[in-house]
Amino acid sequence: MLIIHAHPRPSQSRVVKQLLGVLAAQPGAELRSLYELYPDFDIDVEAEQQALLRWQKIIWLTPVHWYSVPSLMKHWIDQVLVLGWAYGQGGDALRGKTCWWVSSAGGAHEAYRPQGLHGRHFADHVAPLAQTVRFCGMQWWPPFVAHGAHATTDAAIAQACAQLRTDCQAFLQAPAPHGDAP
Amino acid sequence: MLIIHAHPRPSQSRVVKQLLGVLAAQPGAELRSLYELYPDFDIDVEAEQQALLRWQKIIWLTPVHWYSVPSLMKHWIDQVLVLGWAYGQGGDALRGKTCWWVSSAGGAHEAYRPQGLHGRHFADHVAPLAQTVRFCGMQWWPPFVAHGAHATTDAAIAQACAQLRTDCQAFLQAPAPHGDAP
Repeated sequence: MLIIHAHPRPSQSRVVKQLLGVLAAQPGAELRSLYELYPDFDIDVEAEQQALLRWQKIIWLTPVHWYSVPSLMKHWIDQVLVLGWAYGQGGDALRGKTCWWVSSAGGAHEAYRPQGLHGRHFADHVAPLAQTVRFCGMQWWPPFVAHGAHATTDAAIAQACAQLRTDCQAFLQAPAPHGDAP
Repeated sequence: MLIIHAHPRPSQSRVVKQLLGVLAAQPGAELRSLYELYPDFDIDVEAEQQALLRWQKIIWLTPVHWYSVPSLMKHWIDQVLVLGWAYGQGGDALRGKTCWWVSSAGGAHEAYRPQGLHGRHFADHVAPLAQTVRFCGMQWWPPFVAHGAHATTDAAIAQACAQLRTDCQAFLQAPAPHGDAP
């Protein structure tokens, strides 16, 4: 599997760093940390596309910033998932792969609801990212979200990591959506 | 009013360029074109915050990229709308302002629906941006979208511009949500 990791301030990361530890420990994981590779936002599109071609299972690992991914991850989406490669005529490079957003949100789970601090359920805020993935012919795996990152305890982080370890097995073992080899 | 304009390839812009002409012609409009100001994504946060403080009516003018704003605009959101200034304790700099997303989408209006090419109504994809604005205490004005940008005719663009001219008057004349001076 391929891990696309994007955290703009890794030294301040508590939760994503732990989640990364869980994912990177999987046998045969390839890790690409975008803020280390491209601190000036100058993405090597060819290298990113080649990495995507190597794997069937893709993970996006980021904190939630403004109900979406951090800006360098959005830049990656804008630059790498281009017409004629990821979608449109001849754009079938990603078809049949599966993509999973693993994230950490500052807000508590309860705040993500109508009338709550964040106005909608988390799943509703995810629509643009889910549709991006689907538009490229990939399967969108239900996101993993560690909620309440700012206030969470070591015990809560450990619990999130245990859950992620389990969920990651299910993600890795799931057959490709169109019956291709995973 | 303040126009925050973000188009990564202005020379290829057909629709946004025309919409910009309409908006920039408004008396007293301040224009900030992010891709000209910050081609290296190195945003002057202080300058952007000062510009926001000068105006009650804020317009974001961008093409729709992957059901959201282009990456430099997302970077602007991540960098400028910070804790203690735009939200959270002491973060009331934007309270009572009104924000309006004016955009151009490649997809046809009919493609934005369940079972359509883009899976959801446009309004549903807008949720993260609307909630971002509301979380900063601003009013979210219903977005203006010129649909079908890739195939649209000169006549259709002219019609969109006429509509924008009308809609912009309503935006500018609307009283501030909490009764402050506009």
